Amino acid sequence: MPPNPIEVITQTYLDAIEAELQHAVERAKEFGNTKLHDMLAYHMGWQGNRNSTEVRGKRIRSLLVLLSCSAAGGDWHQALPGATAVELVHNFSLIHDDIEDRSPVRRGRPTIWNKWGIPHAINTGDAMFALAHLEAVRLAETVSPSIALKAVEILQYTCLHLTQGQYLDLSYESRNDLTIEDYWQMVEGKTAALIGVSTQLGALAAFSSDQASDLYRKFGRLLGLAFQVQDDLLGIWGNSTLTGKSSKSDLVTGKITLPVLYGLSKAGKFAARWMLGPIHPDEVTEVIKLLETEGGKEFSQSQANDLVNEALSTLEEAHPSGIAGDALTNLALKLVNRQS
Amino acid sequence: MPPNPIEVITQTYLDAIEAELQHAVERAKEFGNTKLHDMLAYHMGWQGNRNSTEVRGKRIRSLLVLLSCSAAGGDWHQALPGATAVELVHNFSLIHDDIEDRSPVRRGRPTIWNKWGIPHAINTGDAMFALAHLEAVRLAETVSPSIALKAVEILQYTCLHLTQGQYLDLSYESRNDLTIEDYWQMVEGKTAALIGVSTQLGALAAFSSDQASDLYRKFGRLLGLAFQVQDDLLGIWGNSTLTGKSSKSDLVTGKITLPVLYGLSKAGKFAARWMLGPIHPDEVTEVIKLLETEGGKEFSQSQANDLVNEALSTLEEAHPSGIAGDALTNLALKLVNRQS
Repeated sequence: MPPNPIEVITQTYLDAIEAELQHAVERAKEFGNTKLHDMLAYHMGWQGNRNSTEVRGKRIRSLLVLLSCSAAGGDWHQALPGATAVELVHNFSLIHDDIEDRSPVRRGRPTIWNKWGIPHAINTGDAMFALAHLEAVRLAETVSPSIALKAVEILQYTCLHLTQGQYLDLSYESRNDLTIEDYWQMVEGKTAALIGVSTQLGALAAFSSDQASDLYRKFGRLLGLAFQVQDDLLGIWGNSTLTGKSSKSDLVTGKITLPVLYGLSKAGKFAARWMLGPIHPDEVTEVIKLLETEGGKEFSQSQANDLVNEALSTLEEAHPSGIAGDALTNLALKLVNRQS
Repeated sequence: MPPNPIEVITQTYLDAIEAELQHAVERAKEFGNTKLHDMLAYHMGWQGNRNSTEVRGKRIRSLLVLLSCSAAGGDWHQALPGATAVELVHNFSLIHDDIEDRSPVRRGRPTIWNKWGIPHAINTGDAMFALAHLEAVRLAETVSPSIALKAVEILQYTCLHLTQGQYLDLSYESRNDLTIEDYWQMVEGKTAALIGVSTQLGALAAFSSDQASDLYRKFGRLLGLAFQVQDDLLGIWGNSTLTGKSSKSDLVTGKITLPVLYGLSKAGKFAARWMLGPIHPDEVTEVIKLLETEGGKEFSQSQANDLVNEALSTLEEAHPSGIAGDALTNLALKLVNRQS
């Protein structure tokens, strides 16, 4: 069987991204002490125990930058600093989120704060933030100074939006009156904004018009919203949460998700049980049934499907070309069928 | 007596800086929730208990941007976004440093982490970071796109240097073998880099040559080093540490300062006492005498004087003009005579 062309370009892009990321993070060595760099490299999955592709994350945001650049008719090599920039912003936010959520483990390894303490983790996240934007500036060399400046601006604006989403997420923990509207407002900031800027940066690096790059942004943003809803569904109905490990279920951790907020809005048996306090792993199967009966799963699935369909028709409007265009469509379709 | 012209322009600049800072921080309201903005405004001294000029800090870095712009022959109004950017970077680092150092109070008020918890404080600092760089981008409107891009790059590089300085500061806490060389490496990152970029940004906003703006940067960097040494001296021999409140003495808190490292390098009685463990407030007067006898005060004072002299001769090479030029000289001279 001949190699699948989508898989071929995806692997080519991912290899280039990983090399560029390592190059960008090397700059943390420039001041004569390498330990800050080593913590960054640990987080990125290049150093320390079990450094391997499994602990590195999917680099989905940077992949979207390069695919969008190519699909918009550009040379993906030129978009590489943009791809690195969004991936480093994402990882900066992971380092800080892990402290804020007190998550001890990420992808099977201790998080930075867990390994080196909160002070170093805050500071290492800040270094990642600075490295991200230094990469965005490098678009001046690969694309043009004016596009680099625009990239820096929209990326920083997205970071501000990220902090707003994170603010809402933190403040929701103590609230019991949240609506589906509150949910979308948080997800726009926490997830959709950075994915939207990824596809937009790709289009900008291809010298697309403002109109076209706005379509790419909208495509990414909708994809990001769908991604989050799908993540919510997997957190309750996914393989690892349904079978055997129900202590990992989002119902047990009390996470605010779309199915839960839908269930609460119905003010039925699910809502009554939720309001009584934390759900025990032994109850999970029963509570899931309540939520299904009251429509939480169906509603969320239909929202995810609608979002992906809207994303795809937005992408179509932008007339993506070549294998990269097919890869973007493929990626969106796979999203709503993923199992993990 | 006619008004002192240096005081007149200083006050004019400070008023403009405060208005521009408030305008920049307003952007945190753009996503439909004002609470993140309110925490930022509290930290800046505009909201909450005792919001007044005393709790706002001296805005020395932004003042240096405007004075340098004017002294380099530019229109200080054009440099305002640069002034705001460095001040917001400084305040971002204060918010995070306060968490990392577990400082409960800043300028007489509870710090953000103390008031709203560590997760919100980390996130609020991140928002401040993004706002800072969004301001730097605005130099494209007031000066030129190419200078804005350069400003963004050198400011981010400075942030990377800041995190390196902070890394060293954090790692020094657990070390007993530090040298004066280690001290300068930390202070270059923690203090001198941002002050150096302040004076450089001012010169760049005045369309100075690379050579001239490098001189301004060097002037600021040397001033920053001198500032830190003077701060170290005040932490031991200043009014508030000498008289009555010796529990505030840097000797009691165990802070690594230049006088202390000099004393340790002499391996005499001061070093012997320091190695025994924390110094009690009751001992402070006696330990200060040891440090003085062994030359710690004299050495540090002479270092501060040498740095200020080198700063002033660097400034002279740049041929600063007008009242702003006099103000820069004045500011450097006052620095080594300040009492608080």
